[in-house]
Amino acid sequence: MLREDQTVRYVADMKNRTIALLTDFSYEDPFIGMMKGVIYSINPSARIVDLAHNLPKYDVRTAAFILLTSYKYFPPGTIFCCVVDPGVGTNRRAIAIKTKKYYFIGPDNGCMLWAANDDSIDVVVEITNRKYMLEKISTTFHGRDIFAPASAHLSRGVDISELGKKINPNSLVRIEFPQPRIQGNRYELEVLAVDGFGNIFLNIRTEQIDLEKGENVSIIVGDKRYIARVVRTYGEAEKGRLVVLCGTSHGYLEIAVNRGSAKSVLGVDVGDRIIIVD
Amino acid sequence: MLREDQTVRYVADMKNRTIALLTDFSYEDPFIGMMKGVIYSINPSARIVDLAHNLPKYDVRTAAFILLTSYKYFPPGTIFCCVVDPGVGTNRRAIAIKTKKYYFIGPDNGCMLWAANDDSIDVVVEITNRKYMLEKISTTFHGRDIFAPASAHLSRGVDISELGKKINPNSLVRIEFPQPRIQGNRYELEVLAVDGFGNIFLNIRTEQIDLEKGENVSIIVGDKRYIARVVRTYGEAEKGRLVVLCGTSHGYLEIAVNRGSAKSVLGVDVGDRIIIVD
Amino acid sequence: MLREDQTVRYVADMKNRTIALLTDFSYEDPFIGMMKGVIYSINPSARIVDLAHNLPKYDVRTAAFILLTSYKYFPPGTIFCCVVDPGVGTNRRAIAIKTKKYYFIGPDNGCMLWAANDDSIDVVVEITNRKYMLEKISTTFHGRDIFAPASAHLSRGVDISELGKKINPNSLVRIEFPQPRIQGNRYELEVLAVDGFGNIFLNIRTEQIDLEKGENVSIIVGDKRYIARVVRTYGEAEKGRLVVLCGTSHGYLEIAVNRGSAKSVLGVDVGDRIIIVD
Repeated sequence: MLREDQTVRYVADMKNRTIALLTDFSYEDPFIGMMKGVIYSINPSARIVDLAHNLPKYDVRTAAFILLTSYKYFPPGTIFCCVVDPGVGTNRRAIAIKTKKYYFIGPDNGCMLWAANDDSIDVVVEITNRKYMLEKISTTFHGRDIFAPASAHLSRGVDISELGKKINPNSLVRIEFPQPRIQGNRYELEVLAVDGFGNIFLNIRTEQIDLEKGENVSIIVGDKRYIARVVRTYGEAEKGRLVVLCGTSHGYLEIAVNRGSAKSVLGVDVGDRIIIVD
Repeated sequence: MLREDQTVRYVADMKNRTIALLTDFSYEDPFIGMMKGVIYSINPSARIVDLAHNLPKYDVRTAAFILLTSYKYFPPGTIFCCVVDPGVGTNRRAIAIKTKKYYFIGPDNGCMLWAANDDSIDVVVEITNRKYMLEKISTTFHGRDIFAPASAHLSRGVDISELGKKINPNSLVRIEFPQPRIQGNRYELEVLAVDGFGNIFLNIRTEQIDLEKGENVSIIVGDKRYIARVVRTYGEAEKGRLVVLCGTSHGYLEIAVNRGSAKSVLGVDVGDRIIIVD
Repeated sequence: MLREDQTVRYVADMKNRTIALLTDFSYEDPFIGMMKGVIYSINPSARIVDLAHNLPKYDVRTAAFILLTSYKYFPPGTIFCCVVDPGVGTNRRAIAIKTKKYYFIGPDNGCMLWAANDDSIDVVVEITNRKYMLEKISTTFHGRDIFAPASAHLSRGVDISELGKKINPNSLVRIEFPQPRIQGNRYELEVLAVDGFGNIFLNIRTEQIDLEKGENVSIIVGDKRYIARVVRTYGEAEKGRLVVLCGTSHGYLEIAVNRGSAKSVLGVDVGDRIIIVD
């Protein structure tokens, strides 16, 4: 997404790769802070960015969607440390993925796979080398004890192959992307995510649905039907008006309310079904 | 606000200006993270600070007040990237302002003007040069596609005049600062902001109102009347006591409750009217 | 908690010590941002980390517990700037503590003492030297006017003795750690903290209580009794099951619900009493 001439100068800096954190830890808790403390202890010149935190707890799919739609905006070489980890301490694997341009580190639960596949997977390793973990490993906080240290070591130039043995990408846990069901002009969709404005992101790319700016469409939720205008941006409609965006910043179909919350108006949340009739 | 000898040494560092972000994006969403990813892609040695996020959605005036009372505490040369942008994608302009000591980048909606005028405007440009934007510009997220890149380029030394053509400061959209109505010892005021403690910030500077420590004043909200003590700091009153601060950290009159929430006690929020009788 | 070989390389970097912020300021407010602006104004190459913010307002004990269980994960030399400060502007002292490996800066209210004692106190000074404060000091925001500047000056190499005169560690305000009451297999405990997942942290170290993985224990809250399984990690129990963790990432006994909230299930919060019968 960045211009070629903007990214070139970054190459010289590859030894100080950015580490982007994505977790379901609350900002009020010290967990994110401890992960950063560990990273700076290992690599004092690491550059840490909060991609997002306090994601819906245990919700691996929402995290996967956020990562898929965000990762391209980070510098090549960025290490995404993704800790939505309801299986922490069980026998789920800890993995590191190298793709064409990025690294992804976290539990093997599908969270990182949509983004990694989108960028094209190069190599996957299971993180097993104790040398790159904290000395004492708890059963309940691998973000701090395994994933932060692995990310920090990668950021200071350790090769991914040092972290553990190579594993087959086909052996990774995957989450199915929920496919839209399309029958003529009727689209049976699912809410993939809701943002802080109450905007609703759906499981269909805007280029898969033929909407024309200015037309009206029906939105059906349960036994209720709403009329929404197709627009290019929120402010094109009057305040409070329900709209469908025919082009979005993340590439997926979006329902919004100008200066209001589509989530509240439609009464839906992640996982709910929405039907759009064009 | 900083001592002269503290700021001098900063001058050598002007090539790596701080970028301070102020938005109404939620911390739970990846929008702030993506903006940072874009900034680091363009300027790997940028120094990014979160001034504040998750401001009241679409509320340009509250953002303007926060910026006005905060900007002076940042290093000279800081670039404030301010994205409270309900008009994104419409014909509102994208602007960059250079003041005596700082830069302000964001939509032309009044958000940055109180602070910019306070510091004295030097030059304003409309951001139109595509060279300093992302290659693909969405209609709904200019924080990422226009304002973050412009801030990043400024931070690495690009001159503000490169971003677009100069425009007349008088042509900028302005928000009126709500003036207090004073009749003798009766002050008709408005709530400008409420902080996380429930402290209430009013639209009158403490030096405009003659309050003496230890005296009592009346606070009138709707048809209810409360008695508050005038204090210099919260802990001077007993726990739970309603107080008015005669000197504040931000310069504006403040109503508080020691170890409690004035917002809850008075039942008010931003925009509500409060009358104080001295 | 870090491996010896990981921390050694950090020593060379001691002149750019990390500053970790811990406050009860809301993320929505500009207070944390202003503190960072002040720090970067004084030391442009400071490394700032948010340990945690938006802690329960005015709750010094919860902050003390979080600091105690987190500080070890930060690089040696880290300066913890801790601002939970209901007494701001009153006659409570501003202090700086140097321990074996760290620095702690904040009000003298007990918040930093559990951690400082845990690491072993070297020297304590009362911060009185105006040279290391902002020029104008408000009565209500010493985080910005005193503690951030002191932290920034320490981070760029100023010696702690420059900040003010040495004081006796025994003169510091202390908060008693609430001791568990143990009678045979009956443990009368108190909730020290609750995290964003609803996990409950109790005032007893896991090694003080003899729990065996797989056994059941009774949890008594008021007149209600619950059965919980002893596990090593959340995912060992079925979804929704109440569990007690026999080993935790922070060292204290924890009650949790797999993929749920123990706080909601038990209806408790910080300060509440919980009895466990083994």
